[in-house]
Amino acid sequence: MLNGPNLNMLGKREPTIYGARTLQDISSELEKTAASLEVLLTFFQSNHEGVLVDKIQAALALYQGILINPGAYTHTSVAIRDAIAAVSLPTVEVHLSNVHQREAFRQHSYIAPVAIGQISGFGSDSYRLGLEGLVQHLRSK
Amino acid sequence: MLNGPNLNMLGKREPTIYGARTLQDISSELEKTAASLEVLLTFFQSNHEGVLVDKIQAALALYQGILINPGAYTHTSVAIRDAIAAVSLPTVEVHLSNVHQREAFRQHSYIAPVAIGQISGFGSDSYRLGLEGLVQHLRSK
Amino acid sequence: MLNGPNLNMLGKREPTIYGARTLQDISSELEKTAASLEVLLTFFQSNHEGVLVDKIQAALALYQGILINPGAYTHTSVAIRDAIAAVSLPTVEVHLSNVHQREAFRQHSYIAPVAIGQISGFGSDSYRLGLEGLVQHLRSK
Amino acid sequence: MLNGPNLNMLGKREPTIYGARTLQDISSELEKTAASLEVLLTFFQSNHEGVLVDKIQAALALYQGILINPGAYTHTSVAIRDAIAAVSLPTVEVHLSNVHQREAFRQHSYIAPVAIGQISGFGSDSYRLGLEGLVQHLRSK
Amino acid sequence: MLNGPNLNMLGKREPTIYGARTLQDISSELEKTAASLEVLLTFFQSNHEGVLVDKIQAALALYQGILINPGAYTHTSVAIRDAIAAVSLPTVEVHLSNVHQREAFRQHSYIAPVAIGQISGFGSDSYRLGLEGLVQHLRSK
Amino acid sequence: MLNGPNLNMLGKREPTIYGARTLQDISSELEKTAASLEVLLTFFQSNHEGVLVDKIQAALALYQGILINPGAYTHTSVAIRDAIAAVSLPTVEVHLSNVHQREAFRQHSYIAPVAIGQISGFGSDSYRLGLEGLVQHLRSK
Amino acid sequence: MLNGPNLNMLGKREPTIYGARTLQDISSELEKTAASLEVLLTFFQSNHEGVLVDKIQAALALYQGILINPGAYTHTSVAIRDAIAAVSLPTVEVHLSNVHQREAFRQHSYIAPVAIGQISGFGSDSYRLGLEGLVQHLRSK
Amino acid sequence: MLNGPNLNMLGKREPTIYGARTLQDISSELEKTAASLEVLLTFFQSNHEGVLVDKIQAALALYQGILINPGAYTHTSVAIRDAIAAVSLPTVEVHLSNVHQREAFRQHSYIAPVAIGQISGFGSDSYRLGLEGLVQHLRSK
Amino acid sequence: MLNGPNLNMLGKREPTIYGARTLQDISSELEKTAASLEVLLTFFQSNHEGVLVDKIQAALALYQGILINPGAYTHTSVAIRDAIAAVSLPTVEVHLSNVHQREAFRQHSYIAPVAIGQISGFGSDSYRLGLEGLVQHLRSK
Amino acid sequence: MLNGPNLNMLGKREPTIYGARTLQDISSELEKTAASLEVLLTFFQSNHEGVLVDKIQAALALYQGILINPGAYTHTSVAIRDAIAAVSLPTVEVHLSNVHQREAFRQHSYIAPVAIGQISGFGSDSYRLGLEGLVQHLRSK
Amino acid sequence: MLNGPNLNMLGKREPTIYGARTLQDISSELEKTAASLEVLLTFFQSNHEGVLVDKIQAALALYQGILINPGAYTHTSVAIRDAIAAVSLPTVEVHLSNVHQREAFRQHSYIAPVAIGQISGFGSDSYRLGLEGLVQHLRSK
Amino acid sequence: MLNGPNLNMLGKREPTIYGARTLQDISSELEKTAASLEVLLTFFQSNHEGVLVDKIQAALALYQGILINPGAYTHTSVAIRDAIAAVSLPTVEVHLSNVHQREAFRQHSYIAPVAIGQISGFGSDSYRLGLEGLVQHLRSK
Repeated sequence: MLNGPNLNMLGKREPTIYGARTLQDISSELEKTAASLEVLLTFFQSNHEGVLVDKIQAALALYQGILINPGAYTHTSVAIRDAIAAVSLPTVEVHLSNVHQREAFRQHSYIAPVAIGQISGFGSDSYRLGLEGLVQHLRSK
Repeated sequence: MLNGPNLNMLGKREPTIYGARTLQDISSELEKTAASLEVLLTFFQSNHEGVLVDKIQAALALYQGILINPGAYTHTSVAIRDAIAAVSLPTVEVHLSNVHQREAFRQHSYIAPVAIGQISGFGSDSYRLGLEGLVQHLRSK
Repeated sequence: MLNGPNLNMLGKREPTIYGARTLQDISSELEKTAASLEVLLTFFQSNHEGVLVDKIQAALALYQGILINPGAYTHTSVAIRDAIAAVSLPTVEVHLSNVHQREAFRQHSYIAPVAIGQISGFGSDSYRLGLEGLVQHLRSK
Repeated sequence: MLNGPNLNMLGKREPTIYGARTLQDISSELEKTAASLEVLLTFFQSNHEGVLVDKIQAALALYQGILINPGAYTHTSVAIRDAIAAVSLPTVEVHLSNVHQREAFRQHSYIAPVAIGQISGFGSDSYRLGLEGLVQHLRSK
Repeated sequence: MLNGPNLNMLGKREPTIYGARTLQDISSELEKTAASLEVLLTFFQSNHEGVLVDKIQAALALYQGILINPGAYTHTSVAIRDAIAAVSLPTVEVHLSNVHQREAFRQHSYIAPVAIGQISGFGSDSYRLGLEGLVQHLRSK
Repeated sequence: MLNGPNLNMLGKREPTIYGARTLQDISSELEKTAASLEVLLTFFQSNHEGVLVDKIQAALALYQGILINPGAYTHTSVAIRDAIAAVSLPTVEVHLSNVHQREAFRQHSYIAPVAIGQISGFGSDSYRLGLEGLVQHLRSK
Repeated sequence: MLNGPNLNMLGKREPTIYGARTLQDISSELEKTAASLEVLLTFFQSNHEGVLVDKIQAALALYQGILINPGAYTHTSVAIRDAIAAVSLPTVEVHLSNVHQREAFRQHSYIAPVAIGQISGFGSDSYRLGLEGLVQHLRSK
Repeated sequence: MLNGPNLNMLGKREPTIYGARTLQDISSELEKTAASLEVLLTFFQSNHEGVLVDKIQAALALYQGILINPGAYTHTSVAIRDAIAAVSLPTVEVHLSNVHQREAFRQHSYIAPVAIGQISGFGSDSYRLGLEGLVQHLRSK
Repeated sequence: MLNGPNLNMLGKREPTIYGARTLQDISSELEKTAASLEVLLTFFQSNHEGVLVDKIQAALALYQGILINPGAYTHTSVAIRDAIAAVSLPTVEVHLSNVHQREAFRQHSYIAPVAIGQISGFGSDSYRLGLEGLVQHLRSK
Repeated sequence: MLNGPNLNMLGKREPTIYGARTLQDISSELEKTAASLEVLLTFFQSNHEGVLVDKIQAALALYQGILINPGAYTHTSVAIRDAIAAVSLPTVEVHLSNVHQREAFRQHSYIAPVAIGQISGFGSDSYRLGLEGLVQHLRSK
Repeated sequence: MLNGPNLNMLGKREPTIYGARTLQDISSELEKTAASLEVLLTFFQSNHEGVLVDKIQAALALYQGILINPGAYTHTSVAIRDAIAAVSLPTVEVHLSNVHQREAFRQHSYIAPVAIGQISGFGSDSYRLGLEGLVQHLRSK
Repeated sequence: MLNGPNLNMLGKREPTIYGARTLQDISSELEKTAASLEVLLTFFQSNHEGVLVDKIQAALALYQGILINPGAYTHTSVAIRDAIAAVSLPTVEVHLSNVHQREAFRQHSYIAPVAIGQISGFGSDSYRLGLEGLVQHLRSK
């Protein structure tokens, strides 16, 4: 599970807006889902585009699939897109908020065309649904 | 669960492309998921924009939420969008295929801005994930 | 008087937003205006684009003019535009809300170029003003 | 009642095209309508954008609402839009012709988003309908 | 042979513009061409997008090819496009008028990319030429 | 019958893609169709825009109509469009392939607005159908 | 001869760039040309859009044609365009500089579509050529 | 210091939105800043585009620099832009509000490319910062 | 004097539209103007873009300036633009009709940015005015 | 004070273009301004988008406001925009040059809509004015 | 080696701008490179689009690859693109100048998508590098 | 020689698609070319935009020119563009694939306008040709 820029700020500020849940809370919860699905999940966050590219490349040797919330890089990073295409690991793109209700520039994703699918708008449930979707995809192959 | 135009053709032709699963199969499977989530689900398909609008309006008296795969009407129907906004029932939009890998005109959705969230690309699993997301949304309120 | 999709929901929900007036109320009120203007008015609503096209064609034999609030079809229906152009009955387009204060896609009308005129933003008064405008147009010919 | 540029030319030339009615005729007729509605109306025309802005500002102390045919300034004047927004008087925008049947640049209005509503296409009846709509709006508040 | 919205109005009004030929006349004439080509042809018209989608789906069991004049739906219906793609029957798109001489929005066709070919501008001869083209295509396979 | 650039390459290369039919074959076949329709047809091909303009101008004295496959010049030549408009001979535009299934720049035609009609997608049958359409147009005048 | 905004600054500053010729010089020179053509010419400049509109309207009673350098208003004034269209006097648009070599927004003229013709790029000779063109146009009618 | 249309309305209405500060207050305050910087400042406001152009031209003989809040004319006036370019006085453009948070049409400035710099979003402090910036620019030359 | 495609058709057809004047007539008349200005003028027309490029290059050794009506190539030929830029001879672009009143694609000129100036809308007088403008430009250098 | 990519190159090369002032010089000067305003200022530069995001997040615990020259990231970084929005610290955006006189892509800022205000074009004075504006904003709250 | 329009002017004028090297010099130099690579090279230039199309077609029987500088036709010729696609000879596109530093319309190439690769900006070295690239491509197959 | 994101994946996966050649192989080969050209070449790859900017800045003290394959950053990095412009070292941009045959967003390069030239489509030969071009450029100065 890769998290893009500013997601480490979740729950640290403005709990009335973003909820009281920190990325740490989401991580713990998601690891429980992972356990119940009998898969191993590693949780990682970075504000750096290059670090996310490095991690995706490194995933090739270590993981069978990628769950990613690219945050702001969804809309600007061809490098992350190319990394996902290069490793060819099944990838699911998730978003906490419904990006279609926000600024126009947030409605274009460089990542979606190289992902299996995209889930947006369910808050932290987007992560859980994304993990289930990814596991099912891997098991049905 | 509302299904838009041409989804009744699923599995009836070209099984190598669209899979052997008919809409009937998806319906049966989804009803099982509904049962396990202890919710009641009605399955409906129409090729008519107006019939879908009628059904959404009628849902106000009968249901607590809407799961919809608007098919081709995703990209052309302001009427369905307005119907969802008018009834104000929590709505989840699902797509079998990853619309971001298809023609440019399929990447715009009139429905998404009035839905809770959108799930695309997981084949018939999109429906199951969408139902889970909708139920969780309703229960967390 | 033809009403497009979702106008049958008026007053049925969210009275604080849309007012407590139902389409039935507007209809009664408009019939009174019609009576005072000594014209005969029939009130009709449908969520179906095709039904509205059928009605416009049928109007040719029965009416001298058309008052229409095409709702969502204002922005997407070339078929309704072509029907109005085909019957060549004087047509007035009305809108309850000021469409210029809403989403960009609501600011384009396929209907306006084949109508005599357009009235928007006066709530249910838009209907009454539209009827007066239509009657005056017919009488001044 | 404010009239924008070139409206003083009405009826003075090409009666076969624009009709024989001068702005003076429309003014007289509109004053009668005002009298029957028991409201006071002042009629003013200018070819100067700045003069129209001055008049709108001055209206704040003298009038309860504004009826305006901004003519060519409809499509180019942010200054008139801002003046209307600044005084916050209920404003109705009227047009003699159906602007949707003319050049593309005439289909955008800077004024409409800050007005209550817009009436176009009914010839000099647009003025009368606009006045009725404005008065009703003021009385229903 | 499928006919879209408003084509049932042909010849019923304004014979000086559209000619005196009704859709019934075109149908009779086309059936003669069909007979001379030794093929069976059924003629159908509807103003409803959904009904046209239903008919295209039903054609799968009954016909070897589709001749369609989608009328106004040419420019707005992704649903009809998807229906044609779903049944995979060879389809020919015809238009009475030369759409390239009309409004800009009439120059885009959602249907053409899923059809064998397109014929426009020959009046009722477009239908006859389209039928010949379709039959030849089917026989040359 | 005028043929634009590169059509002389037909059938000379890649028969599996473009078919084994050369432009010479199409010419012979079309002359038979011409004979059966009792019209005289001359067949001409050039890679030069200016030569095609010269030919169209010269056609004024020699022919009653023009059948043209402008090839690549369809999308770039205002000069050929103006030549057709200048001679005012009834002109039919034909294309072997369905241009709507190819690159975006091939979907705009400078020629179509000055032609009677356009036929595309029927392979060499486009030529035959085009000739029939042209002859019928000339005879129905 | 009407001159738009900032043309009164000609020759007053930066003679190396704009030349030493003031608008007064151009006026004198143009009056000589007028005399030699045996026509009466009045020279006027204003920085005010409204004043230019007033002058165009007043020209109806006094002049047979209008020579105008609308300066910056070329690109922003629908009011001046409408004034010229309203008075229907033959109008010639002139520019000192070649507007096609300047900023993109200077390449669109609201005035040109209602003028007889446009002359740009010849410095003060644009005025003289424009006057000749206008006079010849008036005499050839 | 030049102020464009509607800035004379500041503080006169809706003090909760625009603050209680009138343009007169800003003028007094700015004159104090001018005094402390040992420069002479004249304060002027007009709703007329032409009057602002006149003033800019007149500034050439009287001032060393221009501080301007063009208000609505920022987005529509090529005439003011050309006037500033013509007099070649160092010019600073200021805005009370952050124009980047408002309507899209307010994000384009005709004035900025001919100004030294632009300051927006600091309320009446934008004026003071602009004056400091202008004075420093003039002294550093 | 270079003339682009289809200008050789002038006066040969449809005298009520284009006038009875042939290109030959315009040529004779222009040669008289040339004589009275004491310059030598050669008149040339071609429908071939390449031939016009050849002529422009050849003009370098033979002429001091170019008068060109590029016809349809105005809007599509970068090659003619580059030829004019390469020879660096003063060039004047002329058009018989007012291109600003015609199709949108005729309002863009590839030639104008490399010409001294452009004259359009004066019929055959455009040629004469263009020649005068060119001669004066050459003499004032 | 945060500085984006390449600002560390200031004054190191091409002193005739960018001035002899290094970022170090600007830093020293700005610290003096900070001292005179009795605020504490830390100066930081990085070429890495992710490092700038990290710093903005870290500022939440350490600073009351942010002064930022995002350099090239102004136009491409949604991540920096989101970081500023997430920490909700008052932020002022400054630019050395007048971005409105440069390439089109430099005229769009992702940062400005989440900043208090923007200052551009005053060279290193932009920094000083920005700091003053920020301090005043903080003190006026 | 094919050269498009105006390349025959190289070195003949303005040696300070384009260098003293004529196309003849480049040709001689390139033939030496060809000799050292042990390939046969023919050098050809034309200002005519159609002649270039003819040459490309003729190359099919005579050459193994094409090196082309299409000059101005790079941006306007679909016919040359189609000719290259039709002959299917490996083709390398070269440009003397860096087209990315010139007008926007020069940044689109119709040729590049059907070429192996593109080389621009190295002056006459672009030709030599292109030839090497082409030869290596042919030898590595 | 600078290599952008994901180029370190070359040859490590999918050898049938990208070839068996790793970046290490290309590096060795390129060093041999460098040796034969008697220049020193350092090979570097990073997935981080900021690291590439740092390296470009550092190159100023160490190298005479830059050979860069910016990978995905070609299309999104203004920071790398500005770094190249700041150091003013002659720079050559190379691409393995023909970017003109890929997605639309890959056809725009922020880097090309500040480079000497661009080479694309020759696989690893693009690097070798780019190095030759760069060396020749440096030696010809």
